[in-house]
Amino acid sequence: MSTHSVAEGSLPHRFRALWDQLAPIGRDPDSGGYLRYAFTAPELELRDWFRAQADQRDLPVTSDGNGNLFARWGDPAAGDAVLTGSHFDSVPHGGAYDGPLGIVSAFLAVDELRAAGVAPRRPLVVAAFAEEEGARFGVPCLGSRLLTGALSPDRAAGLRDADGVGLAEALGDRPAGARPDLLGGFSSFVELHVEQGRALVDQDAPVAVASAIWPHGRWRLDFHGEGNHAGTTRMADRRDPMLTYAFAVLAANKEARLRGAHATVGRVRVEPNATNAIPSTVTGWLDARAADPETLATLVEAVRAKATERAGRDGTRLTCTEESATPLVAFDGGLGRRLATLLDAPVLPTGAGHDAGVLAGHLPTAMLFVRNPTGVSHSPAEAATDTDCAAGVTALARVLTELTCG
Amino acid sequence: MSTHSVAEGSLPHRFRALWDQLAPIGRDPDSGGYLRYAFTAPELELRDWFRAQADQRDLPVTSDGNGNLFARWGDPAAGDAVLTGSHFDSVPHGGAYDGPLGIVSAFLAVDELRAAGVAPRRPLVVAAFAEEEGARFGVPCLGSRLLTGALSPDRAAGLRDADGVGLAEALGDRPAGARPDLLGGFSSFVELHVEQGRALVDQDAPVAVASAIWPHGRWRLDFHGEGNHAGTTRMADRRDPMLTYAFAVLAANKEARLRGAHATVGRVRVEPNATNAIPSTVTGWLDARAADPETLATLVEAVRAKATERAGRDGTRLTCTEESATPLVAFDGGLGRRLATLLDAPVLPTGAGHDAGVLAGHLPTAMLFVRNPTGVSHSPAEAATDTDCAAGVTALARVLTELTCG
Repeated sequence: MSTHSVAEGSLPHRFRALWDQLAPIGRDPDSGGYLRYAFTAPELELRDWFRAQADQRDLPVTSDGNGNLFARWGDPAAGDAVLTGSHFDSVPHGGAYDGPLGIVSAFLAVDELRAAGVAPRRPLVVAAFAEEEGARFGVPCLGSRLLTGALSPDRAAGLRDADGVGLAEALGDRPAGARPDLLGGFSSFVELHVEQGRALVDQDAPVAVASAIWPHGRWRLDFHGEGNHAGTTRMADRRDPMLTYAFAVLAANKEARLRGAHATVGRVRVEPNATNAIPSTVTGWLDARAADPETLATLVEAVRAKATERAGRDGTRLTCTEESATPLVAFDGGLGRRLATLLDAPVLPTGAGHDAGVLAGHLPTAMLFVRNPTGVSHSPAEAATDTDCAAGVTALARVLTELTCG
Repeated sequence: MSTHSVAEGSLPHRFRALWDQLAPIGRDPDSGGYLRYAFTAPELELRDWFRAQADQRDLPVTSDGNGNLFARWGDPAAGDAVLTGSHFDSVPHGGAYDGPLGIVSAFLAVDELRAAGVAPRRPLVVAAFAEEEGARFGVPCLGSRLLTGALSPDRAAGLRDADGVGLAEALGDRPAGARPDLLGGFSSFVELHVEQGRALVDQDAPVAVASAIWPHGRWRLDFHGEGNHAGTTRMADRRDPMLTYAFAVLAANKEARLRGAHATVGRVRVEPNATNAIPSTVTGWLDARAADPETLATLVEAVRAKATERAGRDGTRLTCTEESATPLVAFDGGLGRRLATLLDAPVLPTGAGHDAGVLAGHLPTAMLFVRNPTGVSHSPAEAATDTDCAAGVTALARVLTELTCG
């Protein structure tokens, strides 16, 4: 273990040095955001960076045949490994921290353990999961779902991106699918992630431990009307689905606020989408999340009922299709309490899905959140200070010491 | 003039025979609508059909160097010509009648005049204008605007379609621009067009004469907010421009109804347009039309003011940009009254722009409308019966007889 080199300087300084290596990769100069879709050139460059970082630390890298990479410290014969890491891919014009922070922090945590002379009893594995955001092939947590068997390789092989490229082509091979042999060799998983709201700003703490992921889902709302000429069709003769759509957007916001839940319509598709044409169809996607499944169900039903009532007045028609539903993920309670006590950190739920949510069904799993001063995520305004990121590395290093040595 | 052939049968039958030749050209089998963008393969096929029809009738065809075609019956030395015709191009997934009906009716009217032994004192010219809908290069009435000098050839040469193809490339040459030499040779213009509302259904008449084109315009509404994560951002922390957009859509509808005007938001663009992202920006295009310029101005101002007030509550910001404005076109009153009396037809305004509206500034211009039982336009549901289309041809033939012989 003597050949690896550890950078000089304070931890915030070392964090910044490593972070700056990633900053230009896949950055759109116009928006300042990132276009790091899975298996595209920028994400492949990040994977090369992962291999180089692992090499520098003498951590052999393997793939699971599903696009997920694993860099291992320690002999597999030494027992089940502690897994940590996150993902490289971004949403369109996403922020820098969502995903990469967990991987960079994992490598720096390895450096911390080594610098402190920690000799882990269990192996430690740093992971980079594939297509966590679902921005290219439409299935979030694609890599971890394949690894755990939550998504079949047959279905995955049929996925295509917006240009018609199939997953197998992007991956270079058919996905391998479930790997219980690999999963069975992990004793626990800890994912460090930038916080995606302002809760840690309010709590004045740099790091938190996750309690749960809210149940959430996506519903496609198709509003059917009658395409017509915008200039010549009398208002009384119209069946304009844009009106029903607009009403539904406002209703979703109101119903979510009433329930302390989250509802968003951030994606819309219009046919024919011409300035001088009343649309024939407007499709909106409702993203809804709540603290418990009952609240989520009543929220979606309220939006559906109010929009349907309005459709009757607009002469339009609404169909509502559930496109995905993710149940409540309660992270391993014992592990979370143990880490919160160890770190003296607050405990928070989150509304976002993560690879940790997928793995939580298979092994004891925990998440750490690093404070985000803007509270903004999935946008170039996403942020974290170097000091807080260093606090995240320190926290992760303490957790990994506890889990590999305890 | 003895070599041309005139089809057999009743006028509705002859209309249908000619109409069926166009029916398959550029038709999308999925929507049933037409994709006949200017200078693309289907529209070029329609231009070939125009030349073949002119040839069959011994009408020499010329172009004006702006993409507009003219088929002439009669010696130019015989005096200023009466111009009739319309356009071939369609909106995306548009109907069959908007445009082509005016050209098919013009050729059939020539046949009617000849069958009746009419010997015109003035020449008669059938026109096919280019890019009336503006669906390819973004400027409606592109051909007639170039011909009249309302659009400079320099500006037109810089126009590009969605694939980046320039107008000059599509046209095969730089546009020629204003042709006062040609325009000066026309004594009047009559455009026959399918009606684009249900007014003639209510009035129980197959044909009407146009009085005016309402003033109208397009305003781009840019709603700026803060892109963020749909799952993790608390409702109170959001600055969601989709909410302000939705409010503006409903406000535009309400304000137009209050004023007996028309307002439509049929086109929208969202950044980043992802299901799990609160948008950073939503852009909607407001199409507004009213009977007079004052009403139009107060309508747009009311929408702007109400949306701006709402933006204050949503934490978003609205900018409103006028992208185009077309003043009131009052067709030549003397000509319109003369034709309405000749045909014993009702007189109607319209909310739609037409090449006739562009030419009305340069020569006495009139329009005839043919009843549309659905009242639907710019959509596959646009319709006219063969009997009404034949009535349109008969009316046009009477008008052209009057104007070429009177």
